[in-house]
Amino acid sequence: MGTTMQLDFDKLDGLIPAVMQDHATGRVLMVGFMNAEAFQKTVETGYATFFSRSRNKLWMKGETSGHRLVVKEIATDCDRDTVLLKVEALGPGVCHEGYASCFFRRLENGAWAISEARAYDPESVYTK
Amino acid sequence: MGTTMQLDFDKLDGLIPAVMQDHATGRVLMVGFMNAEAFQKTVETGYATFFSRSRNKLWMKGETSGHRLVVKEIATDCDRDTVLLKVEALGPGVCHEGYASCFFRRLENGAWAISEARAYDPESVYTK
Repeated sequence: MGTTMQLDFDKLDGLIPAVMQDHATGRVLMVGFMNAEAFQKTVETGYATFFSRSRNKLWMKGETSGHRLVVKEIATDCDRDTVLLKVEALGPGVCHEGYASCFFRRLENGAWAISEARAYDPESVYTK
Repeated sequence: MGTTMQLDFDKLDGLIPAVMQDHATGRVLMVGFMNAEAFQKTVETGYATFFSRSRNKLWMKGETSGHRLVVKEIATDCDRDTVLLKVEALGPGVCHEGYASCFFRRLENGAWAISEARAYDPESVYTK
């Protein structure tokens, strides 16, 4: 993929941060990492696919929960070492902890405070 | 700083990605990296401060251009290994290449295309 090759994966051991933003509301939903293969899969399938640093393998967001991210637009920055994807989030929430966005903690008076209610019960989705 | 210590800087050699989002428009302006010291400076000063991987030192965004990012809100994600800052961008553009956002390239038919006009002339700001 020509577009894959033009991204700079060298600064971060083969990875680039990938910001997922709701295409309708503008809310930032999550940040993951992609290697070249994950980026290529994302472009080819139209579903956001990441490289899991903890599991050391590719994972399509939603492969367990069904909460896939449908890609609407892909942008990169001046240094081509980060991508920003506008997505449509399928399902009630992106975060595996049950929230609409993974960014549900806000700094308030020097401490992290949960700033919203859960959008779904994660046990109903992730526990079998 | 208690809040600094609760962030997970270990996954990425002391760094976390820091997403800058315009507090008024919701546009993602840039993504940088912070180490614990940069995060602490950001909280203390109210201006977004990063760790430059290429220069291996802290830099306050706007220290050369004057285009500082005034912090309005700080959030972190479920894994506490990324931060999302809502900011007010001072000056005409965040990107050192003259654009309002660093994400001025969009994937179109398999190639990166510049998707907007410059907001200012970078030579007038960065060249002395």
